[in-house]
Amino acid sequence: MRSLEIDASWDPSAEYEPTEIETDSRKAMNASEVWRNPELKVTEKECPSPKNDEVLIRVRYAGICGSDVSMIETDEDGYVHYSAYLRLPNITGHEFSGEVVETGEDARLFETGDLVTAEVTDYCGRCNMCRQGFQGHCENFEQVGFTTSGAFAKYVTVSEKLLWDVSSLRNAYGDDDEVLRAAATIEPTTISYYGLFKRAEGVVPGDYHVYHGAGPIGLTGMNVSRASGAGKVIAFEPSEERRAVARELGFEHVYDPISRDPVETVDVVTNDEGADVHVETSGAVAQTYPVIEETLAEGANVVHISNAKTTHEITLRKYQGNSAQLYGSEGHTGNQVYPRVIRLMASGRLDNLPIVTSTFDISNADEALHRAAERVDGKVLIEI
Amino acid sequence: MRSLEIDASWDPSAEYEPTEIETDSRKAMNASEVWRNPELKVTEKECPSPKNDEVLIRVRYAGICGSDVSMIETDEDGYVHYSAYLRLPNITGHEFSGEVVETGEDARLFETGDLVTAEVTDYCGRCNMCRQGFQGHCENFEQVGFTTSGAFAKYVTVSEKLLWDVSSLRNAYGDDDEVLRAAATIEPTTISYYGLFKRAEGVVPGDYHVYHGAGPIGLTGMNVSRASGAGKVIAFEPSEERRAVARELGFEHVYDPISRDPVETVDVVTNDEGADVHVETSGAVAQTYPVIEETLAEGANVVHISNAKTTHEITLRKYQGNSAQLYGSEGHTGNQVYPRVIRLMASGRLDNLPIVTSTFDISNADEALHRAAERVDGKVLIEI
Amino acid sequence: MRSLEIDASWDPSAEYEPTEIETDSRKAMNASEVWRNPELKVTEKECPSPKNDEVLIRVRYAGICGSDVSMIETDEDGYVHYSAYLRLPNITGHEFSGEVVETGEDARLFETGDLVTAEVTDYCGRCNMCRQGFQGHCENFEQVGFTTSGAFAKYVTVSEKLLWDVSSLRNAYGDDDEVLRAAATIEPTTISYYGLFKRAEGVVPGDYHVYHGAGPIGLTGMNVSRASGAGKVIAFEPSEERRAVARELGFEHVYDPISRDPVETVDVVTNDEGADVHVETSGAVAQTYPVIEETLAEGANVVHISNAKTTHEITLRKYQGNSAQLYGSEGHTGNQVYPRVIRLMASGRLDNLPIVTSTFDISNADEALHRAAERVDGKVLIEI
Amino acid sequence: MRSLEIDASWDPSAEYEPTEIETDSRKAMNASEVWRNPELKVTEKECPSPKNDEVLIRVRYAGICGSDVSMIETDEDGYVHYSAYLRLPNITGHEFSGEVVETGEDARLFETGDLVTAEVTDYCGRCNMCRQGFQGHCENFEQVGFTTSGAFAKYVTVSEKLLWDVSSLRNAYGDDDEVLRAAATIEPTTISYYGLFKRAEGVVPGDYHVYHGAGPIGLTGMNVSRASGAGKVIAFEPSEERRAVARELGFEHVYDPISRDPVETVDVVTNDEGADVHVETSGAVAQTYPVIEETLAEGANVVHISNAKTTHEITLRKYQGNSAQLYGSEGHTGNQVYPRVIRLMASGRLDNLPIVTSTFDISNADEALHRAAERVDGKVLIEI
Repeated sequence: MRSLEIDASWDPSAEYEPTEIETDSRKAMNASEVWRNPELKVTEKECPSPKNDEVLIRVRYAGICGSDVSMIETDEDGYVHYSAYLRLPNITGHEFSGEVVETGEDARLFETGDLVTAEVTDYCGRCNMCRQGFQGHCENFEQVGFTTSGAFAKYVTVSEKLLWDVSSLRNAYGDDDEVLRAAATIEPTTISYYGLFKRAEGVVPGDYHVYHGAGPIGLTGMNVSRASGAGKVIAFEPSEERRAVARELGFEHVYDPISRDPVETVDVVTNDEGADVHVETSGAVAQTYPVIEETLAEGANVVHISNAKTTHEITLRKYQGNSAQLYGSEGHTGNQVYPRVIRLMASGRLDNLPIVTSTFDISNADEALHRAAERVDGKVLIEI
Repeated sequence: MRSLEIDASWDPSAEYEPTEIETDSRKAMNASEVWRNPELKVTEKECPSPKNDEVLIRVRYAGICGSDVSMIETDEDGYVHYSAYLRLPNITGHEFSGEVVETGEDARLFETGDLVTAEVTDYCGRCNMCRQGFQGHCENFEQVGFTTSGAFAKYVTVSEKLLWDVSSLRNAYGDDDEVLRAAATIEPTTISYYGLFKRAEGVVPGDYHVYHGAGPIGLTGMNVSRASGAGKVIAFEPSEERRAVARELGFEHVYDPISRDPVETVDVVTNDEGADVHVETSGAVAQTYPVIEETLAEGANVVHISNAKTTHEITLRKYQGNSAQLYGSEGHTGNQVYPRVIRLMASGRLDNLPIVTSTFDISNADEALHRAAERVDGKVLIEI
Repeated sequence: MRSLEIDASWDPSAEYEPTEIETDSRKAMNASEVWRNPELKVTEKECPSPKNDEVLIRVRYAGICGSDVSMIETDEDGYVHYSAYLRLPNITGHEFSGEVVETGEDARLFETGDLVTAEVTDYCGRCNMCRQGFQGHCENFEQVGFTTSGAFAKYVTVSEKLLWDVSSLRNAYGDDDEVLRAAATIEPTTISYYGLFKRAEGVVPGDYHVYHGAGPIGLTGMNVSRASGAGKVIAFEPSEERRAVARELGFEHVYDPISRDPVETVDVVTNDEGADVHVETSGAVAQTYPVIEETLAEGANVVHISNAKTTHEITLRKYQGNSAQLYGSEGHTGNQVYPRVIRLMASGRLDNLPIVTSTFDISNADEALHRAAERVDGKVLIEI
Repeated sequence: MRSLEIDASWDPSAEYEPTEIETDSRKAMNASEVWRNPELKVTEKECPSPKNDEVLIRVRYAGICGSDVSMIETDEDGYVHYSAYLRLPNITGHEFSGEVVETGEDARLFETGDLVTAEVTDYCGRCNMCRQGFQGHCENFEQVGFTTSGAFAKYVTVSEKLLWDVSSLRNAYGDDDEVLRAAATIEPTTISYYGLFKRAEGVVPGDYHVYHGAGPIGLTGMNVSRASGAGKVIAFEPSEERRAVARELGFEHVYDPISRDPVETVDVVTNDEGADVHVETSGAVAQTYPVIEETLAEGANVVHISNAKTTHEITLRKYQGNSAQLYGSEGHTGNQVYPRVIRLMASGRLDNLPIVTSTFDISNADEALHRAAERVDGKVLIEI
């Protein structure tokens, strides 16, 4: 089957000593210290077959995530930017939709023909984290498209407990092609939903939300916020193209944080009441936190979602003076996140299709990745 | 000024012994045990003048609430149905909008010309309930339109701490007449918002909501639920006219609970997942609770809003087997309820105007009340 | 190995039609409609051996639960009282402590010699309930001592994900015998902890708690409440012996609800402020709910834990007028319940040993069960 | 009446331009930019008399807070350290107990002879913050002992809505002198209670708590944590004297963060599970946050209470990787904080008396303040 594969050299940096398990499994816990000189190629691989509780899916659309891009971008020494858990060579891709074509002997939840999407983190359900309810930080986790074969291929197998039926999207879309395109954007959408409604505890309808960064996570998050009753959604994004996508989605308060003072802007848009919810989706924390801290409404929730590599200065006094709190959030694993996001999309009030600004055929999947690396699209999809 | 006044005879029933305070103040704690043979008349009263922190408002629209109706409906002995706190004679009416025309010497929050609506419960801020944060159950409360002069009149005075500016609705409506019509529906809308987001603690976007009863509270509640991200909103309502209003608002799942089995209906609409949120807005608890208890999703929240006069049978086993909870909710007093509802309306995603199905001039206010008593309208407004 | 076994006749009542799965597996979903004429015997069984992720435990103490008793008590037609999921014949017993003596090939969390106790509900981790975080209501659940062999025997095997290390109790107790006696009371203790801190959401230190019923669940619950900062703990219990146990534990406000008016008593003890937390652990709902509803403090939480077989009358008005809520609670499965209860016991501030009022040797296990059926003990233990 | 008065020169720094209101009222919003060369004296002042809803209290004990000390400590230019709202000259002192001796004509909650303590922040109840439930950040606030006359005097008047009856402490203490000494420590105790149970949302019994700083706020907080069910309470404090007080209170895990590595210590004490609750009460954020971030248990709550003057580096990655959150907390104003802390003390399970390590007569109140400035005591009280 036609697949997009990434490979690189296992070459741990001087400071990093991989464990025996890492070396044996070729799964680096911090890829950016181990994997060097990545290569990307479209190639033919053998079709997998579903074992036990696995389900075989004929992939139809797969989105390119910033993490996919960071596996082929390198520092000056050739080490990849991606800094989490990664096995290579691997077929990557973890934001996808498709159709069930075969089920493992133990699989009971799905049938051939079901339209589905998948969660990313495969948890063991038995370790000390899992049995305390922390499946998202499972001690034995695997990740579809990171440590196991992913979705930039005609077929992928996934444990059925990670799969969710998306046929209810037919309520919102006219044909199954649209359903599957929309379904491929569910995974990034769950990231904000998880941060806003499973990590933060006090987000209520009518709150004013600010997104710092309107890339794929920010744009799908803005859609979540609006569908969930945000009184206003404000976005700051330096890319003109991405601001255009946000406006195309119908958002009115979309600004360039460089040409326009963000604090003053929030003050004007919120009538000096400040923002109740601040979502950091840019990673440019040195620029965004000073803005956040000057625009906290009383009781504000700050949800940190982006991958911030550095520490940053925080002014604790601001969180005290405004009864504010800061939540670190990552991933989407947890109670009902996928089913609730799917329901929001099925209601017709959360439409991500305008965010999809480029679509490439799987034969040109490498080009798709290079395109995504330009960071001007809403979302780049691969059609398979 | 032209006003709608209700009066009745102070004639405590044999079982009810009013306190000295009740007798002296003519404020009955349980009106249905004291006030008899009510009379309704449109009359001329003197215009009030704002004292201390009060604000004088030129009323523009005032909605008729079920409680207004229950002040003129009686039992066979002539006692009014309304069973809470009431002083008579009084100008009633507590769901209104208008324009500030004068402010008391201590009032600081508003200026002449401001468009406003008001909360109902005037709390003292100093009693043992208030200082513990329970202003809604203030020990010394007064209620606009119940124990103090209300809004079925050209002018009304209200303590400024109960008033909220509604000029932001200009963002959603084309002219100030529409703004003021919409603003007169804020009060009933806050009842569900308070129940869903200040009393219940686990309502999240994507949840399936069921309203048992689509009168004014149910209809405005359904609007709140949809604007706040309900995955689906289901309503059961025996009145054909009110079902028509619900459909006019764009709701798809609106049913007659008599001609169609409600449990089976919820099962079908929710694909057997059950409803996450159940809002009781009908008062017909003997009919609705058995349905609620058969359709509880795991972790379901039941929000009891209606005025249920009787006890009812509850099957505790159902709440255990579905990890469900039941919240008693009344009123709207509390942190940020009004400002958040106003923001939802200003966003354009919560439009109550289609709910207003009859409008009467203040000169025909008595007819308006009789019309509302037929219980077939969405909302009856009086234009003043 | 010496074991206590219960058997009965599979004889479905006229109204109950078991599914094929029930018949094949001899697991009745509602035991009280199927199992008839129970017999109890101390007998010799073969020692089990741990498979896969199972752990073999040398049981040391096992408590008798009301559910064990209800498996040998019958209605007039000979059907057992126990109304939930039950396979017979079976070694029952699910409240126990012991020492790990062997581990299955896949077990990784425990080692020989570890002192442990266990959760009851074995969840699959893969069904639609489990993957949404509702493991306690797993669609494929098994229960130790109900559908799988339990702890009234020298050895028991349990999936390791249900086991918790109790060696930290050595911090609170002088020797391992005391550690293991105390550890056998952890399971009942988790029932209230789960209800108070995982189901109810607003219980805070200083709240006044009332227990309606001071049997084993009520007594261990009172210990949880006190250790967790209850301002006062009030108990109503008709059994003089159980009231004596409560007083022995150091509780001051322990009353007979028959000889003393409970509403008046709560008013006096709480200085008319009412109780913030009401825990129903008696099952006598016709008597207790009227008391609960007359003594609700503003914002009160009612936690329903007992097995109430009947419906009961509820006065919704009371929940509205006091901003109160009612939570159905059962079991203990969920995030961190066991580890947190173990920590409370290890701190020395939650001591259940005085609750253990009778201890029988496994050879007299049948007598132990008959003793427990008298319902006068705090907790009856079997030493093995 | 004998009183301790602080005065200083109104001499705004070059960078600070006071508003007209500040200048007219002599209330500086940031005292450290305005008040210079403070002087402290014990002097005779006239006894106040209670107006409106005020109550006159015969003060019996008054504690010295860090803020009192910082009003007489200065930078090299002579400006006081205290950086919040302050009017001078003033009788300071806001942690106190006493007896009601007279009530204003509008006061209804108290009677002569009642034993009381008081909240600090007097809120207006009418501004836009108050009417949204944010009384702690009232726009028109006054503070007892900061902008109004305080308790380092024989008598003080306070608005009755800030007063709380402490006679229930008689349940825990043998005589009224002990009751009043204990009651004078309620105010500092409420600071942690508010942070743990009104700001943070997920603190549950059995959690492991770490206090970074065991001065008066830390020590009373540790008492709150233990009484509220902390599984373990760990404290880091460089002062040997204060560590001794902590041990005197019965805390086992009390360490010098300088001579002993705090991260390693938390790892050992928590058996590598990490701490669930981290309370910053030291102000030494450059030292404490790196420790906090290395010892976060999954789902950890960080409660920031101290007055941190500087920004500090935060590692957001740690909050994401551990699903942790950070709450800014200040003050104690809010629903039921005082009544709940009083109940905990009345239960006998929260005893602050061992924290009181020095007591001075009001005639030597200036010495008391100098003593407190040495920062080696648990709590310094003035007896009046």
